[in-house]
Amino acid sequence: MKVSELSRRSGVSVASIKYYLREGLLPAGQQTATNQADYGELHVRRLQLIRSLIDVGGLPISRVRATLAAVDDEATPMHDAFGAVMHGLDEVPADDRPDDVDAAFDEVQTWMASRKWHVAPNAPAPHRLAELIATLRRFDFPISMSYFDAISDFVEGVVEPEVEYARAMPDRTAAVETMLIGTVVIGQVIVEIRRLALEAVSYRSDGS
Amino acid sequence: MKVSELSRRSGVSVASIKYYLREGLLPAGQQTATNQADYGELHVRRLQLIRSLIDVGGLPISRVRATLAAVDDEATPMHDAFGAVMHGLDEVPADDRPDDVDAAFDEVQTWMASRKWHVAPNAPAPHRLAELIATLRRFDFPISMSYFDAISDFVEGVVEPEVEYARAMPDRTAAVETMLIGTVVIGQVIVEIRRLALEAVSYRSDGS
Repeated sequence: MKVSELSRRSGVSVASIKYYLREGLLPAGQQTATNQADYGELHVRRLQLIRSLIDVGGLPISRVRATLAAVDDEATPMHDAFGAVMHGLDEVPADDRPDDVDAAFDEVQTWMASRKWHVAPNAPAPHRLAELIATLRRFDFPISMSYFDAISDFVEGVVEPEVEYARAMPDRTAAVETMLIGTVVIGQVIVEIRRLALEAVSYRSDGS
Repeated sequence: MKVSELSRRSGVSVASIKYYLREGLLPAGQQTATNQADYGELHVRRLQLIRSLIDVGGLPISRVRATLAAVDDEATPMHDAFGAVMHGLDEVPADDRPDDVDAAFDEVQTWMASRKWHVAPNAPAPHRLAELIATLRRFDFPISMSYFDAISDFVEGVVEPEVEYARAMPDRTAAVETMLIGTVVIGQVIVEIRRLALEAVSYRSDGS
């Protein structure tokens, strides 16, 4: 299909499509003339993915580029690709972190080992978690690793069917894309449900 | 204290402090001379809050301004302030939404009523949730409201001690600030733990 048809099918403007092509988020179409290219169903799906990550997931373009590079790197096996996609979602933290973040990072490492969670050494999530713990402690929140265990027991049960669902996809790209959209969107679902619960519980416990 | 001392105490540069003063995120200090002002402990704490929301929570300046305005509006009672803080965290969605988001919004409303969750009519979270559900369905994720109930049962248990902790603060501002930092940072904690769990579960279920 031509770019105008791709725009109609995906609901993304031609200007945005050209921007995503330039930025390397969308693979080029099949060249048919000097100034014309042919696009397929993969392009429609990829555009839906890009828009979901930006509009719904709130990811900046740089993070979208990093995660999609992991999706498209056919050389990495499926599990590593699942990891790489997750790693693309966060900035890699700076080395010169404060002492309280350093201490929290050691706790996170010990805690992950106690859960037998295998995570790649370059994963940004344990570093992010250490920053979050240090922040909560600066505001005197009583945070311990047993609190994290309660959250993790629940989360582990929720993600198992998600991983199975992604793995059952017909090909590697569909599997990794599904994993990506699930990671970003379902994570956000939990955040929004938490906000609703906070408001509802606060209202309920209010004397007025 | 002078602005230089405020900078040293909070770890925020004088340039950033002046920017936050101009943007109305930080209340002005007590004027002591034409070009000098006196700052107190409330300013130190407010700067820590601003940096946590921006650096750790990843909020844009516009959202920080909206939530801090809710914190500082002494005219609203505590419960309404808790709600208003939450409402400031999300953009209010556009009116012209697609049919599938509209349908999902009706489901969210019915589901919230079934849980007896009272949430202000202008809360953005139910709208955001509808967008997220519609996005998951576009990617053929099998999503039902019973799945949401499982998440909510867990989340409701986690937020109850959080709300109590915030309410036990010595004054209204401290209570609302605590609620805000808990909402943003603990929400992000769950997101990061989910990413770790996804990577760990995916690794474990991998044949290799």
